[in-house]
Amino acid sequence: MEESMETAIEEAKLSLQEGGIPIGSVLMCDGKIIGRGHNRRVQNGDPLAHAEIECIRNAGRIGSYSNTILFTTLMPCYLCSGAIVQFGIEKIVVGESRTFKGDLEFLKDHWVAVDDWDIDECIELMEEFIKKNPTLWNEDIGKL
Amino acid sequence: MEESMETAIEEAKLSLQEGGIPIGSVLMCDGKIIGRGHNRRVQNGDPLAHAEIECIRNAGRIGSYSNTILFTTLMPCYLCSGAIVQFGIEKIVVGESRTFKGDLEFLKDHWVAVDDWDIDECIELMEEFIKKNPTLWNEDIGKL
Repeated sequence: MEESMETAIEEAKLSLQEGGIPIGSVLMCDGKIIGRGHNRRVQNGDPLAHAEIECIRNAGRIGSYSNTILFTTLMPCYLCSGAIVQFGIEKIVVGESRTFKGDLEFLKDHWVAVDDWDIDECIELMEEFIKKNPTLWNEDIGKL
Repeated sequence: MEESMETAIEEAKLSLQEGGIPIGSVLMCDGKIIGRGHNRRVQNGDPLAHAEIECIRNAGRIGSYSNTILFTTLMPCYLCSGAIVQFGIEKIVVGESRTFKGDLEFLKDHWVAVDDWDIDECIELMEEFIKKNPTLWNEDIGKL
């Protein structure tokens, strides 16, 4: 597996160790990691701290996103898909979309290429987490 | 004008005083302000710190958003519209949509009621800011 996705999975596991939601992301630019992050809803008490948001934030004010690729362990929700579309990130690679479908059509309609790697490790991380923490998961996706 | 929008405009002006982008937001729940914020891209060096994001963050982990109304001085971009849709904020009141159109259809397609008050003060704040800072504005909306 490509190093970028391995790093995103490391971020997801780090979140789990911290008592948080196991989703991780990495932002690549010209083959280099320029940002990484994980969901910090629990850790920071911040409902907006989805993995993709944290990752893009950690990359700082980079200007144009036209050469970036976002790797994320789970298909993005509307918050994160909105960030991807608004900032013009043209490609995303997702670990899986079985435990959360997101809205593939919204991304495609806005010219975002989506590559879904359907990785067992990502699916298992989320399935186990959701089974143990259904309320926290529903809070994170706005379904309380 | 309703106090909530006045407070959102205060937030926008506060951002301008700090050298930032003049957009402000307020989150109301059952008639009370539970969060307020303004764009902090410049102040925090944070590309994700749009006014609506800061405002929802400042309200903390409130659980369900079903009784909330978001007041914002400018029509939300996809990042902020994505947050509104994902968290189930059912109504937004916007100061204006002349200097940034956003995507009204996306919001309506996801059952968000949008009330556009077309306020001169909000339009003037943004028109003057964009005229003086075109590059910063294009950075904020991902159009560099």
